Amino acid sequence: MAPFDSLRSPLDFLRAAIPALAHSDLLQSEQRWWQSESAPISSAIDRAGTPWVRMHDASGARIDEILYPAEYYTMLHRGYRAGVLWRAFEDKSLVPAYLLIHLISFFDPGICCPYTVSLATAAPLSKYGSPALQSRFLPHLLKRDDTVWQGATWMTEIAGGSDLGAGVKTVARPSGDHWLLTGDKYFASNAHAQLAVVAARPEGAAPGVRGLALFLVPRFRADGSLNVFLRRLKDKTATRSVPTGEIELRDSEAYLLGDAGSGIYLILEVLNISRVANSMVSVALAQRAMADALAYAETRIAFGRRILEHPLLHHQFESRLASLRAAFALAWESVRLLDEVWLARPPYNDRYHLFRLVAHLAKYWTAEFAVDTAKWAMEVHGGIGTLAEFGIERWLREAMILAIWEGTSHRQILDGLEVMERKHAHKLLFDHLAEHAPASDLRDLDSEIDRLLALPSAEKEIQAEPLFRRLALFTASHLLRG
Amino acid sequence: MAPFDSLRSPLDFLRAAIPALAHSDLLQSEQRWWQSESAPISSAIDRAGTPWVRMHDASGARIDEILYPAEYYTMLHRGYRAGVLWRAFEDKSLVPAYLLIHLISFFDPGICCPYTVSLATAAPLSKYGSPALQSRFLPHLLKRDDTVWQGATWMTEIAGGSDLGAGVKTVARPSGDHWLLTGDKYFASNAHAQLAVVAARPEGAAPGVRGLALFLVPRFRADGSLNVFLRRLKDKTATRSVPTGEIELRDSEAYLLGDAGSGIYLILEVLNISRVANSMVSVALAQRAMADALAYAETRIAFGRRILEHPLLHHQFESRLASLRAAFALAWESVRLLDEVWLARPPYNDRYHLFRLVAHLAKYWTAEFAVDTAKWAMEVHGGIGTLAEFGIERWLREAMILAIWEGTSHRQILDGLEVMERKHAHKLLFDHLAEHAPASDLRDLDSEIDRLLALPSAEKEIQAEPLFRRLALFTASHLLRG
Amino acid sequence: MAPFDSLRSPLDFLRAAIPALAHSDLLQSEQRWWQSESAPISSAIDRAGTPWVRMHDASGARIDEILYPAEYYTMLHRGYRAGVLWRAFEDKSLVPAYLLIHLISFFDPGICCPYTVSLATAAPLSKYGSPALQSRFLPHLLKRDDTVWQGATWMTEIAGGSDLGAGVKTVARPSGDHWLLTGDKYFASNAHAQLAVVAARPEGAAPGVRGLALFLVPRFRADGSLNVFLRRLKDKTATRSVPTGEIELRDSEAYLLGDAGSGIYLILEVLNISRVANSMVSVALAQRAMADALAYAETRIAFGRRILEHPLLHHQFESRLASLRAAFALAWESVRLLDEVWLARPPYNDRYHLFRLVAHLAKYWTAEFAVDTAKWAMEVHGGIGTLAEFGIERWLREAMILAIWEGTSHRQILDGLEVMERKHAHKLLFDHLAEHAPASDLRDLDSEIDRLLALPSAEKEIQAEPLFRRLALFTASHLLRG
Amino acid sequence: MAPFDSLRSPLDFLRAAIPALAHSDLLQSEQRWWQSESAPISSAIDRAGTPWVRMHDASGARIDEILYPAEYYTMLHRGYRAGVLWRAFEDKSLVPAYLLIHLISFFDPGICCPYTVSLATAAPLSKYGSPALQSRFLPHLLKRDDTVWQGATWMTEIAGGSDLGAGVKTVARPSGDHWLLTGDKYFASNAHAQLAVVAARPEGAAPGVRGLALFLVPRFRADGSLNVFLRRLKDKTATRSVPTGEIELRDSEAYLLGDAGSGIYLILEVLNISRVANSMVSVALAQRAMADALAYAETRIAFGRRILEHPLLHHQFESRLASLRAAFALAWESVRLLDEVWLARPPYNDRYHLFRLVAHLAKYWTAEFAVDTAKWAMEVHGGIGTLAEFGIERWLREAMILAIWEGTSHRQILDGLEVMERKHAHKLLFDHLAEHAPASDLRDLDSEIDRLLALPSAEKEIQAEPLFRRLALFTASHLLRG
Repeated sequence: MAPFDSLRSPLDFLRAAIPALAHSDLLQSEQRWWQSESAPISSAIDRAGTPWVRMHDASGARIDEILYPAEYYTMLHRGYRAGVLWRAFEDKSLVPAYLLIHLISFFDPGICCPYTVSLATAAPLSKYGSPALQSRFLPHLLKRDDTVWQGATWMTEIAGGSDLGAGVKTVARPSGDHWLLTGDKYFASNAHAQLAVVAARPEGAAPGVRGLALFLVPRFRADGSLNVFLRRLKDKTATRSVPTGEIELRDSEAYLLGDAGSGIYLILEVLNISRVANSMVSVALAQRAMADALAYAETRIAFGRRILEHPLLHHQFESRLASLRAAFALAWESVRLLDEVWLARPPYNDRYHLFRLVAHLAKYWTAEFAVDTAKWAMEVHGGIGTLAEFGIERWLREAMILAIWEGTSHRQILDGLEVMERKHAHKLLFDHLAEHAPASDLRDLDSEIDRLLALPSAEKEIQAEPLFRRLALFTASHLLRG
Repeated sequence: MAPFDSLRSPLDFLRAAIPALAHSDLLQSEQRWWQSESAPISSAIDRAGTPWVRMHDASGARIDEILYPAEYYTMLHRGYRAGVLWRAFEDKSLVPAYLLIHLISFFDPGICCPYTVSLATAAPLSKYGSPALQSRFLPHLLKRDDTVWQGATWMTEIAGGSDLGAGVKTVARPSGDHWLLTGDKYFASNAHAQLAVVAARPEGAAPGVRGLALFLVPRFRADGSLNVFLRRLKDKTATRSVPTGEIELRDSEAYLLGDAGSGIYLILEVLNISRVANSMVSVALAQRAMADALAYAETRIAFGRRILEHPLLHHQFESRLASLRAAFALAWESVRLLDEVWLARPPYNDRYHLFRLVAHLAKYWTAEFAVDTAKWAMEVHGGIGTLAEFGIERWLREAMILAIWEGTSHRQILDGLEVMERKHAHKLLFDHLAEHAPASDLRDLDSEIDRLLALPSAEKEIQAEPLFRRLALFTASHLLRG
Repeated sequence: MAPFDSLRSPLDFLRAAIPALAHSDLLQSEQRWWQSESAPISSAIDRAGTPWVRMHDASGARIDEILYPAEYYTMLHRGYRAGVLWRAFEDKSLVPAYLLIHLISFFDPGICCPYTVSLATAAPLSKYGSPALQSRFLPHLLKRDDTVWQGATWMTEIAGGSDLGAGVKTVARPSGDHWLLTGDKYFASNAHAQLAVVAARPEGAAPGVRGLALFLVPRFRADGSLNVFLRRLKDKTATRSVPTGEIELRDSEAYLLGDAGSGIYLILEVLNISRVANSMVSVALAQRAMADALAYAETRIAFGRRILEHPLLHHQFESRLASLRAAFALAWESVRLLDEVWLARPPYNDRYHLFRLVAHLAKYWTAEFAVDTAKWAMEVHGGIGTLAEFGIERWLREAMILAIWEGTSHRQILDGLEVMERKHAHKLLFDHLAEHAPASDLRDLDSEIDRLLALPSAEKEIQAEPLFRRLALFTASHLLRG
Repeated sequence: MAPFDSLRSPLDFLRAAIPALAHSDLLQSEQRWWQSESAPISSAIDRAGTPWVRMHDASGARIDEILYPAEYYTMLHRGYRAGVLWRAFEDKSLVPAYLLIHLISFFDPGICCPYTVSLATAAPLSKYGSPALQSRFLPHLLKRDDTVWQGATWMTEIAGGSDLGAGVKTVARPSGDHWLLTGDKYFASNAHAQLAVVAARPEGAAPGVRGLALFLVPRFRADGSLNVFLRRLKDKTATRSVPTGEIELRDSEAYLLGDAGSGIYLILEVLNISRVANSMVSVALAQRAMADALAYAETRIAFGRRILEHPLLHHQFESRLASLRAAFALAWESVRLLDEVWLARPPYNDRYHLFRLVAHLAKYWTAEFAVDTAKWAMEVHGGIGTLAEFGIERWLREAMILAIWEGTSHRQILDGLEVMERKHAHKLLFDHLAEHAPASDLRDLDSEIDRLLALPSAEKEIQAEPLFRRLALFTASHLLRG
């Protein structure tokens, strides 16, 4: 059974996948904690469903407090202390954050959302925020103890998250040295964060995405009163360790990041960080589902032997492990490329366009793989796979959210098409893969894509999916071998 | 949008799929009721999770009463009154039952399990039961009012349901004119049924499947006391309209069906009925998920138009509708063949072997399709697809149970291999398809299968999956065209 | 055991308590329905806890729909059809409504809140509404089928319900032929009603209670859009068959009832109807708890005999039944007096002041008795009294709400003091009781009360409780005998 | 407000009530932990309702694991480490245990049940267990770290807990050096304890209480397999921090404590420890409800001032605080007397009989007071007192369980009568109170009791309640002054 052993531990998997793995000692000690402590906490939070919100204190004042159990914060703070946030700024690299996100997601996929959106709050603040804003807010986010502030990224409104140009109706009015925001955010992750980056439209700005700007919005006003209101939490079927809610902004104090005219670029940079995290969480989740399936298949007996020894199932483990490695290689490439470009500003260079295509491919493919693997792990468990009690069914619920937030497969495909069309990102990719893949294969794919891009618009969309999938698999497998 | 209209109504779909549809008026009036009344009942039962069991009355006597809401019984009895059970015996055909199961599953996939296991109780009773047993029990099952008894099929024990020969440890001891059963059933569907068929092993019988016998076990003893004990209900993630529990048999009164030596045949006949039902429920569920996705895609606006008009999504609706029709054709063929052979007894003829292969293909493929379609419908809904509140995520939970119970895909593939190997069922299938498919295609597939069957055992299993999948798709698409 | 038989049926109790009971046939047929149908519905709703609210439809539009099970409406509508609302206007008497409320509360105490607040909406509309308002809204409330509209009475805001003068901050602005209301209602019973009476303060009105006015607020605006917003439902521990929520009024269309200057009188008239209902529900609930205790005590054996035959317990049943009869007599007197005065307008006559005192005594005492009886019924059941499964503990939760809403005991005592002080209502009461009670007893109590009323304000409050309690008991027992 | 300050802290209350309080430093540091850490844990456990039981592991083996959150054990172990168990044996005194129980109950009333039943397991083991049993089991119970074993006391069966002579049907069969027990325990507190004391009836023993014996039953057999089976947990409405379940004993390994003939004495000694704990928990709970009411009344404004300043409410705080002190004095006297007699063996001396009467009076009166105070605290909070969100309603649920388990008020009254009748315990009590109370009062009460005891049996029971209540109040108030 030794071939499958690396499935059992995210760190063993990372070690096998990444030569000269950085932060190995840190990861080792973190894994030890999560292995021994997190399981009952994580499953208690999942079982509890959507937490209650205590909206008022006894005197009737709005407090909008989310009633997580105390142990939730023990788990949550563990990651911040280990450095999911502060290390990015100490190392000037996102690598340690994504390594921790991978490792922790094996144990609780939802908790990495707070980490990711905190990162995606600190990044634009440190890059585009005025010195005054930075000195006022950044130290809170970079604390290494339990007083750390969390960040959040609130873009989506009631009309949906794909078409932000039409969907963002929150209005920003200038008011002295700051702005006042009014509007409703419909899917607001980490809804109790102390600081959020928020997409809004300054009064009088252009329609569409060009009129959007990115604002920093603290949870409390300068006078200490509540600055944002949590209308309610969403009854999500999974990722219950991140509270996702509906947020009401009502003349909420806000601070502009960058200049109003280039807000859409800042918003997309924020999404880059989340999209890459989604890919890392997806491969970690797939590994976890396989690890659980492995543990079961090693002990369950049918027809006189352990079911892992049944040829069909054994073969499935082998081929799925190969796919997991390829999916990881693809996700990891999106991490490496983002780490190169996350400090770049518009107008962006080709490395950024390459990153964007790889990120779309990775987001798309790792989520598909996570869903498929979670489904398979349930089937390996047979009847008990359908019981809430045994926790296997949870991975499919978690995976489905990974497949949807940060853009469904439709979105990745169409956005991937766009970056190929406008920036010829597929050619950048094929250059990037030149050492790894046979030239003829690269040429064939290139001309197929060019043919696709030359089609009339509707036809192009219709035919895009199989080719995009093939491109993802091709890239993944050659990165793996490379 | 007219091409997708048949998705909205199971009856419209049936009418398009089955020429000269029987019982059309009945289906019409039933559909009317389910459309107007069932939605709040069905979703309330799903939201409520696993129901409570009141195990004792106030005096401490065991009653093991499942606390469903009153409206559950309104919904449940609707199907019995319409004839999911009695019509099979009046018409001497399973067709009306399966038509009703399809129609009702569109509205509540779980409720068809009670209907199916009741049918699978009445069938062996009427076929193998002594005249005394029949006259004592059958009239209760065939009632047309709310006093109807329900049936249940309890096979699986703690060691799992695939390998019944090793797994069934329940022991039967003769006691006068009846038997006494002692053992635990671990996944007992419809755990409050008044009558169950139960697999057990008579004391001293052979080991393995040859030593199994099938017994009839009423919920109450002849003296009126409880005959079977419900240890607890399983916390299933879906199909909450059927109570699945752990049953303790403790010297429970039981009656032998058929003779003890041929129990395994009776057990497999019972499973035939469930497996075919599973296929019908799967296609109905896939249709329902598509219907919901359609309703959403028709109203949701993004990038200036309804998302149904986005080329990629529109194309997905078209191709998925074609797949749904093919999946239905395959499932329906399993119904028709079962209707031919359900009264046959061992030794079985070729028609029976053909049925078995088609039933495996249909169970396998329709469940895969239901899962994939439910996942896709969630993605069409974007973020709200992940919220319990909107009910879309439910279809994936329901579909996963369909993919697991009555045998996972592994089971269907391996059992399908066996009937091809032992009974050459693939050749029977190709004969059956001769009018529908090109002879050359049939020949090619035939020789590929023969090549597979000639492989050493382990290798055969390893390579079986893609070919089995191809055979399912091939059969489905040619049945559709035929 | 025959002496306790009337405990088992609310109608038997009413027949014994009220000579020449009106509407006896109606009550008979209604009791038959509630006895056979309501128990599983009522307990399913209680077990389900606070229902979900679906706040948005899939397109994102606010709908604020409360997800009760379908059977909730079956139960709810039963009362409306029987006439809890329309009979008051057909008979020009509240008696049939309160008889039905008593009878139904025996089976589900919470469901009578919707009935009561609907009555308390229709009453001021029919009394103070303009002909145009009446013809527009009243017919909807008086329907006798399932299309009936429900009413609601929304007064309390975040600062509490006792001190309405300070607590009501909702502002009303005139706008053409109607008003626009803006404010938050913090305990809004029957939060999904189609029509509510709402306390608000017209812009520029006097501070305190004199500045309040009463408005009619429909759930939907004239243009069909939502007029009031349900922020959330309260997680009440009982009375779950009435949805109580937080309501946001945001420029909500409203219509003035009566004239703005006398709003406080209208508000108090609305509360009269609820307070009397609370007394009737309390005695019905106490009876129900006793009925359940009786059923248990008749079958439970300890120390060799049924526990009902244990002298201490038997004695408790006897004395508690006597108290129940007295409590009913007091509650019923408040019904009779209200029925005399509900159409009176300010300035009120002495009959109205007498009613007010009796209503305070009855609200206070019946709720105390209900709580004490529910506690006692739990103790009679021993351990199973503490289990949610057996439903006995529910009566204490329900009773505690009866003791709190419509004013706690503090409130009844202090308001009772006031009406004695200002209107000499105790003297009116002693005149009223002259035929029933010995003159010397009346004289003694009268002078004790006068002595109390002569005390300095703080001291008067401190000493009020025991005397108020004695007055309630005295009145109740003499009404019973009378 | 200073007069009420001692309500806020259990330690301040203890210091005021007990001169020269022992273990003051320990209590101080424990209180600090519970004040800062326990609230979110305790309320999360209460909100979560009855925990799940994982009955089988994935391989199907029975494990009967209760799925408490991890933080439950953090809280639970805190008390064991502080010494609720080991200090009794180090100090040879129950005083430190009961002081800790009082203090901890202020923060979580349910968690003291595990402590109490562990104490009530260790006590008879150390008193009546053979040296071999003691050396095998006692060290596990007396550990000072998180590997401590818990105890449990399982007496009650389906027929109820009052009449153990008739109710205990569990049978014990000798088997070598141990016994095998078979039977069902219906209310088994701390159902996952590693060691329980269990009432059972040796085969062939006398009927009634004389035939009972007390056994030690470990959770696991000598061979490591499960020795007792948890059929299910009870859905209690409160005390959710102790798991109460139904236990199946099936040839469970057991060890006799003491000799079989005197089992009933051992059982009653076990109950003594629980009954006294119940009194201490009751007064702590009453204090907690008052502390919460105080915090609310200090901030809530009505009619222009804080409601605590309203004369009626202020007066209620004063008189209730006096009652709380008296109730504590009574409970504490039961602790002191038990500490004198807990090592005594039958035949008992007068001190033991005096203890028994005081324990009955204390159990009765403190529970009544706790229920009444919890109800009152809800009313002080008005509407929010009825909301689960604010946690006040919890105290009434908790208090009702205290009023029922360890014997309802009926039981205390009748058992108190018995010990007065048979042992003249009232005379012992009056001697005991001689220094505290006026001789004439003592004489009057004594003769009233003698008159009561001289009545015919049924009449005696009927008249007992008011006198028993008076005796409790009298004793409490004189102990307080003393």
